[in-house]
Amino acid sequence: MTTVAAYAAPAAKAPLERTTIERREVGEFDVLIDIKFAGICHSDIHQAREGWGEAIFPMVPGHEIAGVVAEVGSGVTKFKVGDRVGVGCLVDSCRECENCQAGLEQYCLKGVTGTYNALDKNGEPTYGGYSQKIVVDENYTVRIPDGLSLDVAAPLLCAGITTYSPLRHWNAGPGKKVAIVGLGGLGHMGVKIAHAMGAEVTVLSQSLRKQEDGLKLGADHYHATSDPKTFEELRGTFDLIVSTVSAPLDFGAFLSLLKTDGALVNVGAPEEPISLNLFSVIGGRKTLAGSGIGGIGETQEMLDFCARHGIGAEIELISASEINEAYERVLSSDVRYRFVIDTATI
Amino acid sequence: MTTVAAYAAPAAKAPLERTTIERREVGEFDVLIDIKFAGICHSDIHQAREGWGEAIFPMVPGHEIAGVVAEVGSGVTKFKVGDRVGVGCLVDSCRECENCQAGLEQYCLKGVTGTYNALDKNGEPTYGGYSQKIVVDENYTVRIPDGLSLDVAAPLLCAGITTYSPLRHWNAGPGKKVAIVGLGGLGHMGVKIAHAMGAEVTVLSQSLRKQEDGLKLGADHYHATSDPKTFEELRGTFDLIVSTVSAPLDFGAFLSLLKTDGALVNVGAPEEPISLNLFSVIGGRKTLAGSGIGGIGETQEMLDFCARHGIGAEIELISASEINEAYERVLSSDVRYRFVIDTATI
Repeated sequence: MTTVAAYAAPAAKAPLERTTIERREVGEFDVLIDIKFAGICHSDIHQAREGWGEAIFPMVPGHEIAGVVAEVGSGVTKFKVGDRVGVGCLVDSCRECENCQAGLEQYCLKGVTGTYNALDKNGEPTYGGYSQKIVVDENYTVRIPDGLSLDVAAPLLCAGITTYSPLRHWNAGPGKKVAIVGLGGLGHMGVKIAHAMGAEVTVLSQSLRKQEDGLKLGADHYHATSDPKTFEELRGTFDLIVSTVSAPLDFGAFLSLLKTDGALVNVGAPEEPISLNLFSVIGGRKTLAGSGIGGIGETQEMLDFCARHGIGAEIELISASEINEAYERVLSSDVRYRFVIDTATI
Repeated sequence: MTTVAAYAAPAAKAPLERTTIERREVGEFDVLIDIKFAGICHSDIHQAREGWGEAIFPMVPGHEIAGVVAEVGSGVTKFKVGDRVGVGCLVDSCRECENCQAGLEQYCLKGVTGTYNALDKNGEPTYGGYSQKIVVDENYTVRIPDGLSLDVAAPLLCAGITTYSPLRHWNAGPGKKVAIVGLGGLGHMGVKIAHAMGAEVTVLSQSLRKQEDGLKLGADHYHATSDPKTFEELRGTFDLIVSTVSAPLDFGAFLSLLKTDGALVNVGAPEEPISLNLFSVIGGRKTLAGSGIGGIGETQEMLDFCARHGIGAEIELISASEINEAYERVLSSDVRYRFVIDTATI
């Protein structure tokens, strides 16, 4: 066991504070990672505040982890000391079900082991990236290509893959009109990635406040959803809409923006059930779907794609003592576009 | 103009009664059809009682029409006098939009002209199949193959195509597990068609009351949704669920029965909005979709498919004077499985 400095929420809704945690011994197939940077994801806050249900405390959040391999187990073949690596939202899965076998570990039929707020196979709680070191099985570790700086790469491990996966699955690319709802941590990655895939990209944001940013990030068009004209003008426009917001939308209105056979895919998740008139999907054979992060292989593919296209997250680098303040700013959408913790400051 | 006997609702929620209507002159591209049989669809009742919003009265319902061509316009090339033909839910569309061009007339971007309860291009109300004759453009008329009796073919024009289209679009076939929710007019066609397509078919019905029928119609399995065990046992089972019911389901429970990447497609339409927790689609990248009838070409394809597989609807043939009683029986699910009006009795 190794004692490691970390930032943890001692109880639901309590501020995070500095503490220490124990990391397991480096097993045969494990890598010990010196964490350099950890992104702050909105879902860290949902979980630390029990917005998604009962959670495990103390909680060390963080599933956007970038660092360097410090030690490898005797059986490790994929990584060596000094490699630049990342860890995302899951650190284990059953490895045997049809989804794990198909590289869809995120949908493991027996349930994944989350990077934090979960119990591992030995029943021990997992602790996330707001810490100085982590021990992870090599099969749940990905390589960060040389072209990507570790700080801007960290958010790719959740915000990047969460948008990349549905964009790829629903065939964003040349000739396709794609809308991204919300220009936050996920949304700004969605814009960059959809643009790099060759799609015509529209941002649908509550206001035009971030319009200039959106266009710089790669959007071709930018519309305010607070303006009713947006829904008149864009009726029947999109092949694919990816909603990154966790506020409950007027789903009927957004579905009306789709072409026939279009899909509205939710990667944001309101805590409450939404209301939907089924005529909104029957007319035009439309799809309301969801998507959660991505598989390990797909996460590697996404990192390689981002490196090839020079895509990192837009970040505000903070020290660990600023985490609680950062949480409040995330909740008021006051971040452009992802807080990343310099874990040397923990 | 030709005066034709018909059954009409004189006002919303009023009983249907015998009357006469005027049919237009047979135009250059029109066929005059001697209607032989007309099915009673649940949506006839929704519309005659204004459950789907304000309607046009007097209303002659009926969009499951089977008959014989009695006269053709000078420009008609597809049909001749004596041909056995059908008319479904639409009698016109814009013919120019990308959907019409793609054979998806049912999703015409300018809106279809419904077979009844609509206004045609001249602003005249359309009247449906509860009548002795109808005049329809040849492009919105389909051929009923010789192998199919006209009485059991009539319901295929709505109940048949409404289930065939999503089963085909979402690839029902060998190796696929398909569930049909509800064993009514639509559901019993869904079972027959999915079985003929080679899928493994499960009926999900409120009770086991119609189990024997369901298995005879081609279902491999039959489960009662009133039994909570059904949802435990069948968790993660289906590639595709087609819901034919217009009652609001527990959508979270039904989505849990899908495999990863599975789709729950609604062809039934509750009048009220449904409630949905988006986590039900995010976990397993699932789809909640809708589908409405089918295009004209696809309707012909469906009829040919049904003839090849010897599939007609299971019907109760009634005389026109029994229409109002039949409506009450439809509303209490007391029909096996479609009422068909012998229009000679009008």
